Amino acid sequence: MSAIGALLRPRSVAIVGASADASKMTGRPVGYLQKYGFNGEIWPVNPRAESIAGLRCYPDIASLPGAPDAAIVLLGPDRAEAAVRDLAAKGCQAAIVLASGYGEANEEGARRQAALKEAAGGMRLLGPNTIGLVNLTDGMMLSATGALEVGALPAGRISVVSQSGGILGSLLSRAADRGIGFAKLVSTGNEADIDSSDMIEHLVEDEATDVIAVYMEGLRRPEAFKRAARRAAELNKPIVVYKVGRSDSGARAATSHTGALAGADRVYDALFRQYGVIRAESFTDLLDIPAALVAGRRMEGGRVAILTSTGGAGTLLADNCGLAGIEVPVPDEATTNRLAALLKEDPAAIGRNPVDVTLAGLRPDLFRGAIDALLDSPSYDAVMVVIGSSALATPDIVAGAILDCQARSGKPILAYVSPHAPHLVRLLNGKGIPAFATPESSASVLRALRRRETPPPVAAPAEDASVLAGLPSGNLNEAESKAIFARFGVPVTREHAAPDAAGAEAVARTLGGEVVLKILSRAIAHKSDLGGVKVGLTAEEIPAACATMLERLRAAGAPAPEGFLVQERVRGGVEMILGFHRDPQLGPVILLGSGGVAAELFQDTALRLLPIARADAEAMVGELKAAALLRGYRGAAPADIPALVDAVMAFAAMAGAAGERLLEAEINPIFVLPEGQGARAVDGLVVLR
Amino acid sequence: MSAIGALLRPRSVAIVGASADASKMTGRPVGYLQKYGFNGEIWPVNPRAESIAGLRCYPDIASLPGAPDAAIVLLGPDRAEAAVRDLAAKGCQAAIVLASGYGEANEEGARRQAALKEAAGGMRLLGPNTIGLVNLTDGMMLSATGALEVGALPAGRISVVSQSGGILGSLLSRAADRGIGFAKLVSTGNEADIDSSDMIEHLVEDEATDVIAVYMEGLRRPEAFKRAARRAAELNKPIVVYKVGRSDSGARAATSHTGALAGADRVYDALFRQYGVIRAESFTDLLDIPAALVAGRRMEGGRVAILTSTGGAGTLLADNCGLAGIEVPVPDEATTNRLAALLKEDPAAIGRNPVDVTLAGLRPDLFRGAIDALLDSPSYDAVMVVIGSSALATPDIVAGAILDCQARSGKPILAYVSPHAPHLVRLLNGKGIPAFATPESSASVLRALRRRETPPPVAAPAEDASVLAGLPSGNLNEAESKAIFARFGVPVTREHAAPDAAGAEAVARTLGGEVVLKILSRAIAHKSDLGGVKVGLTAEEIPAACATMLERLRAAGAPAPEGFLVQERVRGGVEMILGFHRDPQLGPVILLGSGGVAAELFQDTALRLLPIARADAEAMVGELKAAALLRGYRGAAPADIPALVDAVMAFAAMAGAAGERLLEAEINPIFVLPEGQGARAVDGLVVLR
Repeated sequence: MSAIGALLRPRSVAIVGASADASKMTGRPVGYLQKYGFNGEIWPVNPRAESIAGLRCYPDIASLPGAPDAAIVLLGPDRAEAAVRDLAAKGCQAAIVLASGYGEANEEGARRQAALKEAAGGMRLLGPNTIGLVNLTDGMMLSATGALEVGALPAGRISVVSQSGGILGSLLSRAADRGIGFAKLVSTGNEADIDSSDMIEHLVEDEATDVIAVYMEGLRRPEAFKRAARRAAELNKPIVVYKVGRSDSGARAATSHTGALAGADRVYDALFRQYGVIRAESFTDLLDIPAALVAGRRMEGGRVAILTSTGGAGTLLADNCGLAGIEVPVPDEATTNRLAALLKEDPAAIGRNPVDVTLAGLRPDLFRGAIDALLDSPSYDAVMVVIGSSALATPDIVAGAILDCQARSGKPILAYVSPHAPHLVRLLNGKGIPAFATPESSASVLRALRRRETPPPVAAPAEDASVLAGLPSGNLNEAESKAIFARFGVPVTREHAAPDAAGAEAVARTLGGEVVLKILSRAIAHKSDLGGVKVGLTAEEIPAACATMLERLRAAGAPAPEGFLVQERVRGGVEMILGFHRDPQLGPVILLGSGGVAAELFQDTALRLLPIARADAEAMVGELKAAALLRGYRGAAPADIPALVDAVMAFAAMAGAAGERLLEAEINPIFVLPEGQGARAVDGLVVLR
Repeated sequence: MSAIGALLRPRSVAIVGASADASKMTGRPVGYLQKYGFNGEIWPVNPRAESIAGLRCYPDIASLPGAPDAAIVLLGPDRAEAAVRDLAAKGCQAAIVLASGYGEANEEGARRQAALKEAAGGMRLLGPNTIGLVNLTDGMMLSATGALEVGALPAGRISVVSQSGGILGSLLSRAADRGIGFAKLVSTGNEADIDSSDMIEHLVEDEATDVIAVYMEGLRRPEAFKRAARRAAELNKPIVVYKVGRSDSGARAATSHTGALAGADRVYDALFRQYGVIRAESFTDLLDIPAALVAGRRMEGGRVAILTSTGGAGTLLADNCGLAGIEVPVPDEATTNRLAALLKEDPAAIGRNPVDVTLAGLRPDLFRGAIDALLDSPSYDAVMVVIGSSALATPDIVAGAILDCQARSGKPILAYVSPHAPHLVRLLNGKGIPAFATPESSASVLRALRRRETPPPVAAPAEDASVLAGLPSGNLNEAESKAIFARFGVPVTREHAAPDAAGAEAVARTLGGEVVLKILSRAIAHKSDLGGVKVGLTAEEIPAACATMLERLRAAGAPAPEGFLVQERVRGGVEMILGFHRDPQLGPVILLGSGGVAAELFQDTALRLLPIARADAEAMVGELKAAALLRGYRGAAPADIPALVDAVMAFAAMAGAAGERLLEAEINPIFVLPEGQGARAVDGLVVLR
């Protein structure tokens, strides 16, 4: 058994600092273990007590009758370190430190936290600043916090990992109200050792867990999270994450709360998308989406039938579905006729969606018949039943009808409860019919139920030391940068560098026609600001233009350039930007966006973590609003999208091969020419460590 | 008393079709009136009963002892029309028809509804297909629906108007759970006569109503709604609207539900913005925002202090505030020092926001002191207190502390309840402390509390028949269109029309320099698609270009043009689009957007209903992402924004003066030149009825 396994399902638990006074915070853990029927050994440690709650109490850790599988340390920061050291020495597998006053508090706390980790040695550590964990599968709780008292909460097949203990308590009480059961719940707190990725990796393999819900402030080990997500996809166990740090305010608060750096939120979006992780957009969704997923059914497409006995709520739900990208199509003719015959209605009146069965809703046979008709229809991938106030008096009839129909179909059936009726939501969830109290969550749940292809793993390209060999740190000039890109197959403008005006003129004659002249300088990243770019020159005009450029640089006090770059003039096509940077938390990121001002002004960009597959590059293009431009906007010729995708892949291969020295790279712009004509990187920059 | 006043507060009510069997739907209304202590006359009408619930029953409407103030008709569609006719003849002021099977059902129902309205004559009618109304101020309910049974709901100062009866019931039960009280609730149903605008106009004047919450599917009489909104702003009574029809699915469902056409949703956004109406984005917000507003306090700016005793929930809230555009700044130095002294903490640890008072939260004196410090701080416009699970056991202490502090300050204090604790939410709301159960609503409520300037009424410009005199129906050509714009002060390119090539050449010589040549044709709206635009010609090149254009038109089988248009070539500046159209529901609309492909691709447009004030035009510019371009992007010269605003106002004046014949108008593009150089309408189109 792994140490984390021992922590979640110990055979013996030491309670260090246990109090004999059950009303005290330190008196609770023993009580909780007994109350929930823990059937292993409980070893209280307290020098001032002989026995606690009928159990023998040990004066110190050294006196314990053996090495405990797990321990919970109830001491303050001043004494916790020694206890952790003693537990490790005793051979304990994993210890939980509840106390706060560590990394989340101040610098002194951060030092204290490092010392605590050091004291644990090979023993695993949960916390500090955690409220502990609950294992409902096996009826076991290691906590001192009232917020984790679970009362009548049923055991379920959703497990929860939360970096915040307070949020875990909030989720537990909210789930109880909705009748959503859990397998395991863990608060990872400051994550001095065991972090949320550890816990997710463990829970993915847990036989009692089908869905994992995560409250995330930031990831300490993205590679471990990716591994867990990959494995979860293999096992078809969805991971649903609610992540804060979407706004500056949240990011700052998250930083001060756990000491984790909140990375740029859009990079997290990319991570989740690439690894098949579902992002909950609202706090309500963090419970409602798992509650829907745990029922096990998936939508094969994006079309829902809404069956309602109250017209207004059907409209409300349809509107929210539409906003969430779920289609609410009218029934096909066969289904319309079946409904009309069943309900003795005019097909013209019944052939709508939402399907309004105001009167039939009171007759279980008709209600069943209508649900069956919609489930059988090839037009729908799921059925959402609106529960109106008429069901308040007879909830079992409604639930019974839905259950019967569910047994006859493999499609998801869900319920939106329109009046405030938590007992109905609980009843339905308890019977395995996912039920929701807000129209927004009902819609986002449908979106989450859509079956998604798990992206296949992508191998990272091998690093190639030769790529950057001999190149200096800092900015490279355009010719150097584009030479690196070109080596990996990025199509760049036809161009040659020249040391002086005469050389530049010669290059222009070779290229022929109108050319573009640029200064070549590592020191000047924004050439055009200093008059260092001139478009549409003939060879004859080159010498004078070179002289003017040099004169302007001198006047501006800029260093002398390495020379000039003369390149073909590219016209037409769609202007895009292609970039690379390293996210401080999540690592290498590639960006594709609309070119010119649009990328920044309209935030029209798509991100992916590297490495990527070709399907990722294609999806990036599809996510952009500029995709409409590339496909041929308002009768314009379609652009060479395959060439753009090739360029993205080549650029990604370059970034992978370049390795850690590559800090930033950018092609701005890359022109995507009309179909069959390829793409051209027109300007480029590389920044090396 | 108005007829609607009589309906909400009748002295006598006829119950047509009342049943003596209280368990029947038709037996309920008499019972409800008695139960809630209605102190006027109740006149049941039923030929088959002598008395009902101890009241004398009348065989028919003609036998009633007088003209009832109000009546509720419990008959089906087959007999309701006759009853309505009899009630009108008897002098009843207003009747409610509950039955469905009218306009919402099918065409036959729509005919039935028209007949019902006809039968009502001068009597006002609520419904059909309504569930009636509740007046909690006076303890009176006119309904037959269990969903409106109010139980222990307190009377409050929020009134609700809903086009859907089912939604009204849902709101009522959800509000009861949150401890939110109501004054009046009305379901307007199919709105054969009385519509939501009528009800809002009435409720704005209701002394017991401070805030009006509206569930809207579509507006039948936008002018009445505008009037009501204007008056509500004068009286400082906010109107909060949740409107469906944001998605296609919702729009279609709303259409089938009430027969109302759902207008383009973005035009509704413009309407709400211009008339100071607050739009609820989520269904939860439709109750939570009024609950916050009814407390009466407003935020003078957009900065909130979050006080929390549970770190994670503070982070969650801060993140949602940031997303909603609410600032969560750290405390100023004086406030930090005051908090540090109070809580005996290191200023470095306490000078954060959220302000974490984990331990102090348990000591009421410190908790009060911290709230006072934040309320007194000039850095904050409101304080949001996070209620954690530690408060579950002692809710009165928390509520008491907040109430004490509230009495010492004029700023809003609100509460986010982190665990599931509806009793806490109810308790706080009941004591006048707005309390919320979701982080999303807590944030959107803060946004709604920001004091907003009520836009002043704008007078519509007088119509001027001379503007379009002599112009034909259909499309006008560019010269005709721009002449109309120019007459109102829109700056257009210097240009002249010419009948032929020679004339065009002469115009080009007069203009001087490079010019733009266009064909002039009412029949061809997209000139450039037919090669009808040529940029950068000298006068010498004009005759050949004219010949080529004519030849291409002939080859395409296009009609002969009216002539040519020769205009100055405009370079530089920011390309925008300025348009006018008539929304089928809400009327004349003006649109300003990014030019080129950006308006469509990135939806970078701002809309307003006409007429507009200059402040509206300025706000439109500010709403655009292109505002950054206009202000001078990346070191570019700022554009002449005042000239653009002038052009918007001139264009709006043109649309107002042109009157009903003007169907569409568009300037695309208008170039906004660098500061001080004005703007130029480069192309234009007018479509007349």
